[in-house]
Amino acid sequence: MTEHSSTDNTTDELSDPVTEYEEQLNEVLADTNETAAGESTVSLELPSLGLSRRDFMKAGAAVGAIGSMAGCAGVMNNGGSSSGGTNQTGSGDVPDHFVPPGEHDEYYGFWSGGHSGDLRIYGLPSMRELTRIPVFNPEQAKGYGFDDETTQLLEDAGDFKWGDSHHPGLSETDGKYDGRYLYVNDKAHGRVARINLKYFETDAITNIPNVQSVHGCCVQSPDTEYILANSEFRTPLPNDGRDLDNPDKYVSLLSALDPESMEVLWQVEVDGNLDIIDTDKDGKWALSSAYNDEEGVEVEEMTKNDRDFVKAFNIPAIQAAVDAGNYREVNGIPIVDGTKNSSLNQGDEPLVRYIPTPKSPHCVEVTPDGKYGMVAGKLSPTVSIIDIEKLSTEPDPANVIVGQPKVGLGPLHTTYDGRGHAYTSLFIDSQVVKWDIETAINSPKASEEAILGKIDVHYNPGHIQAVQAMSTEPTGDWLVVLNKLSKDRFLPVGPIYPDNDQLIYIGNDKDDETGGMELVSDHPVYPEPHDAIFASKEKISPATTWDKADYEGEKEYVTESNSRVERIDDETVEVYTSVKRSEYGLRDFRVKEGDTVKLTATNIEGSQDIVHGLAIPEHNVHLALAPQDTRQATFTADKPGVYWIYCTYFCSALHLEMRSRMIVEPRS
Amino acid sequence: MTEHSSTDNTTDELSDPVTEYEEQLNEVLADTNETAAGESTVSLELPSLGLSRRDFMKAGAAVGAIGSMAGCAGVMNNGGSSSGGTNQTGSGDVPDHFVPPGEHDEYYGFWSGGHSGDLRIYGLPSMRELTRIPVFNPEQAKGYGFDDETTQLLEDAGDFKWGDSHHPGLSETDGKYDGRYLYVNDKAHGRVARINLKYFETDAITNIPNVQSVHGCCVQSPDTEYILANSEFRTPLPNDGRDLDNPDKYVSLLSALDPESMEVLWQVEVDGNLDIIDTDKDGKWALSSAYNDEEGVEVEEMTKNDRDFVKAFNIPAIQAAVDAGNYREVNGIPIVDGTKNSSLNQGDEPLVRYIPTPKSPHCVEVTPDGKYGMVAGKLSPTVSIIDIEKLSTEPDPANVIVGQPKVGLGPLHTTYDGRGHAYTSLFIDSQVVKWDIETAINSPKASEEAILGKIDVHYNPGHIQAVQAMSTEPTGDWLVVLNKLSKDRFLPVGPIYPDNDQLIYIGNDKDDETGGMELVSDHPVYPEPHDAIFASKEKISPATTWDKADYEGEKEYVTESNSRVERIDDETVEVYTSVKRSEYGLRDFRVKEGDTVKLTATNIEGSQDIVHGLAIPEHNVHLALAPQDTRQATFTADKPGVYWIYCTYFCSALHLEMRSRMIVEPRS
Repeated sequence: MTEHSSTDNTTDELSDPVTEYEEQLNEVLADTNETAAGESTVSLELPSLGLSRRDFMKAGAAVGAIGSMAGCAGVMNNGGSSSGGTNQTGSGDVPDHFVPPGEHDEYYGFWSGGHSGDLRIYGLPSMRELTRIPVFNPEQAKGYGFDDETTQLLEDAGDFKWGDSHHPGLSETDGKYDGRYLYVNDKAHGRVARINLKYFETDAITNIPNVQSVHGCCVQSPDTEYILANSEFRTPLPNDGRDLDNPDKYVSLLSALDPESMEVLWQVEVDGNLDIIDTDKDGKWALSSAYNDEEGVEVEEMTKNDRDFVKAFNIPAIQAAVDAGNYREVNGIPIVDGTKNSSLNQGDEPLVRYIPTPKSPHCVEVTPDGKYGMVAGKLSPTVSIIDIEKLSTEPDPANVIVGQPKVGLGPLHTTYDGRGHAYTSLFIDSQVVKWDIETAINSPKASEEAILGKIDVHYNPGHIQAVQAMSTEPTGDWLVVLNKLSKDRFLPVGPIYPDNDQLIYIGNDKDDETGGMELVSDHPVYPEPHDAIFASKEKISPATTWDKADYEGEKEYVTESNSRVERIDDETVEVYTSVKRSEYGLRDFRVKEGDTVKLTATNIEGSQDIVHGLAIPEHNVHLALAPQDTRQATFTADKPGVYWIYCTYFCSALHLEMRSRMIVEPRS
Repeated sequence: MTEHSSTDNTTDELSDPVTEYEEQLNEVLADTNETAAGESTVSLELPSLGLSRRDFMKAGAAVGAIGSMAGCAGVMNNGGSSSGGTNQTGSGDVPDHFVPPGEHDEYYGFWSGGHSGDLRIYGLPSMRELTRIPVFNPEQAKGYGFDDETTQLLEDAGDFKWGDSHHPGLSETDGKYDGRYLYVNDKAHGRVARINLKYFETDAITNIPNVQSVHGCCVQSPDTEYILANSEFRTPLPNDGRDLDNPDKYVSLLSALDPESMEVLWQVEVDGNLDIIDTDKDGKWALSSAYNDEEGVEVEEMTKNDRDFVKAFNIPAIQAAVDAGNYREVNGIPIVDGTKNSSLNQGDEPLVRYIPTPKSPHCVEVTPDGKYGMVAGKLSPTVSIIDIEKLSTEPDPANVIVGQPKVGLGPLHTTYDGRGHAYTSLFIDSQVVKWDIETAINSPKASEEAILGKIDVHYNPGHIQAVQAMSTEPTGDWLVVLNKLSKDRFLPVGPIYPDNDQLIYIGNDKDDETGGMELVSDHPVYPEPHDAIFASKEKISPATTWDKADYEGEKEYVTESNSRVERIDDETVEVYTSVKRSEYGLRDFRVKEGDTVKLTATNIEGSQDIVHGLAIPEHNVHLALAPQDTRQATFTADKPGVYWIYCTYFCSALHLEMRSRMIVEPRS
């Protein structure tokens, strides 16, 4: 056991974690003065904390300041208004973000719920949450993990009671969102889930062998041939008790899944920890940010060296190696050796190229035109621009980095407007910086020439996303920045605060302080959305009722006249009931104490939005039945008595009277 | 078993549940032409379905029409704009509902989540969800049902995996919200929960004996002496297998809980099913709506008679009866006989008065001045006005009803602006009607003289609530109507639609079609908020960090220097770790395969909003640690290997590197 000893913290005598953290980060940042390319990239001037945030911004906006970091609430109380101006609805030439009653939003937003484990669907620009889709989280309102099918789905996926969804990716055809599926990872486990966008339901979860945690996850452009998943944590392989104290034998893997079968096709072993992943638009290169090239197990070890290496995976070459049998098999999965020294990486067509960057870069996002991959520095104030074409032509991996603008402190993620601009979130500066891509390429590394403007955000942004920026069709109007802290922005709700998702209009290119960015609205969000992806409403066409053909042969469509009870044996009963407004097909049914009851229920309504519930008190049964849907629940009737089955979705004026009665007879 | 046999429904040949339902409701409504008082209250003219909704409104707005009911989507497609006008933000003399970035809402809204089982906190007028509080639902983001304490809380409350929260009530002192607690029922089980508004957390759940389902639930005004809970479902007493086929022996109970200890003090048995409950402002009378005076078990039986009876409970008299020992005890709870024919109801001070109303009334809401209780007709187009003072003075129960305005079809709930007006939701008409209380009292029963205006809502409203209308301090500005259906109002999200909560401004009294009501905004909500209660921001003062004095002696506050592992015996290990930005106090710890691990973790941060998570992959462990909070989790380390503990709340630039390592050694 290793303990970290320092002064104790007590309520009476709190040490100041803010100061501690600043000192720590100061050291870390000081180390980053040398980039991979050798240029000095930051002259860090840590201002004293006595300055207010607003003073900072006046004093030295270009370099930024640590003062905006987490925990400085004391000096920022109500330091509200943005440098982007007051930005009331509809002011100036910003289109109205308010969607009036009865009108629809323009875009769908798909938010990963983070450690809520779900997916959240928003409308943009109203930023209203339209619904949530439970993914890794059993969830009662939609009966997810309560009916037999979804219970089985979760059990087969490891029977974990929670998950941590991070990076949603929409399926693509020809580089455009095709509205079929959404894929999302589970960072708490080695899992990837698929959401069926016909029904807005999770329809598959794969528990990937050999992997403890999937972090980065993406759909391969342009035609969704693979789903790519990065295992973040390095663990023994297999993780069965071996190599516990040999961290150098731990491994991190890229996994490729088949988007239809959701089976794991192959894995690639690499050096260091894998982080975020994105692909080019041609089906060849997948780029992963990565940290801990040191392969340490503690934070000081992980951040010791000046450089880390972005991994560029040559997907067709990897597939060819697998096809040629150049792998070992662990737990049934072919694993290709993509480590630095692998013989497979030495030829003209290496499987994995290692691109040196400043230490601990956090992300890769590829431009909509497929030309560049932007690697945000995190601990370096720069973004490294990777020229994707050079990955195939340039022998020296350092030379594929064709630009490295200095953007500000704590750059984490980058998005695009399709007009040649990049927008990068600055975690430490609590800002978004807008910069020009071609200017950055044509400027000296570590220069600020490409910067078009900055805008304050509130506070500590992580992911940032503009509409359709992950496809070849960015719309260039709205951008959302997912801030990790909200502090003073909303009414207080106890010690666990909401995050703050902010909507910024980016449709105007102006020669002002913000480069035309305008902060439009703040939105508190339940912990903790991690990332989001947006699609035009024309791209998504969900069903409004179920099509029973989709479950024909698997589940019986129960009509009113075939509502019935069938005793299978002395301990098993099958119960079939239709459901419609005001009545269940079975007004009552009898079972015996201890019976296993297999209940099948069909909502026979044909009209949209007439959903019914089927709840049985004290039996943990709740089915959510959309029109024409059939669900099943198997449970034990273990207590004699009368149990009133009722409808949970308020459905009609006689909703309260809509009941069935389960009579459980004593066995005696 | 009873089956309801009619034509089968299939996709190819769908019967029309809408038509069926209309016919059914038509019959039901025809039956209500006679009120309890004998007057004709509705001349029902069912228009043909060929008319569009808008035509309806032109044709006969006063009487209303069935056409607006659920399921008529086909004829209402995009029939969007409200009769209240276009109502863009800030139009006319309606204050802006948009809260600009950095500014705060004026009011807290506490929404019951319905069969989501949670409580949702909104800001008004922005209608932004500020957070959610898990109540009856295990929920991972806040670690509810994941740490030992909340796991035990849920287990002790019956170990049910879900609940159905319906009616939130804020604790009061002197008739005003005091910001201490919120209480809410579980309709799926016989439970009432308490939320501690210091920490915005559920701190108690009582599983009430003898009760299968709590529906109505309220705080007794003016000083929260009791929490009152209505059991809706009539069941055998005790429900242990006896009286299965004797529905006349089933009972429904009012339960009284102590607001501090959350213990059940006593119960009162009544005839019929209990529904919603509210109290006067003097601590004497509690009024419950009720249905099924017939004591039937099927919908036709339940709605057979013309009358039902609101129950008026004389709380001091009931307490006196309990104190005098006039009860029987079942499962340890004193049960007083409050049935119609009970001897306790025959004297000058009956425990329960039975007030005749038209059949199946749905609700009671008492006016802020405590004078009247409004009973919405549901199947009658009227609201019955109960004069609360007359409950103590008027011998004939029918005479306590001092007014009965005809308001429209499907009246369900009523709220108030403090200026003498009532606002009633009309489920079938999909409208809100504003009416004058004194005019209604001074007009003939079943007349429309008191009606000041109506506004369309979208669609099928249930609860309706104005700010602070449940206290003695209504603010009279904003009203929210919780619509059960949304149909065409939002981008489609699959077969399970969101509900639609609509914000209406009621600060203007105008002589126009709507009486000055203006529809301001639509808000999609996850299924299925049931009710809401609003309080001024001055009334609520949550803590921003934990006070460790609140758990002193129960849990150890773990500092960095006392982070440690203690082996208790060969199979039990206690692990203690501090948590702060970038590091756990324990960088790693070792346990043996099969060990029971009791983990204690303290977030030693002193700054607001610096929350940390503690997640252990593959072990179902997730703790959410607010600043200064300590949580515990007990689990089995059943698989040898390396497990990376990580922080789920993105907390610093070194968040990704913030990890601890659990090393599980093989036993062998």
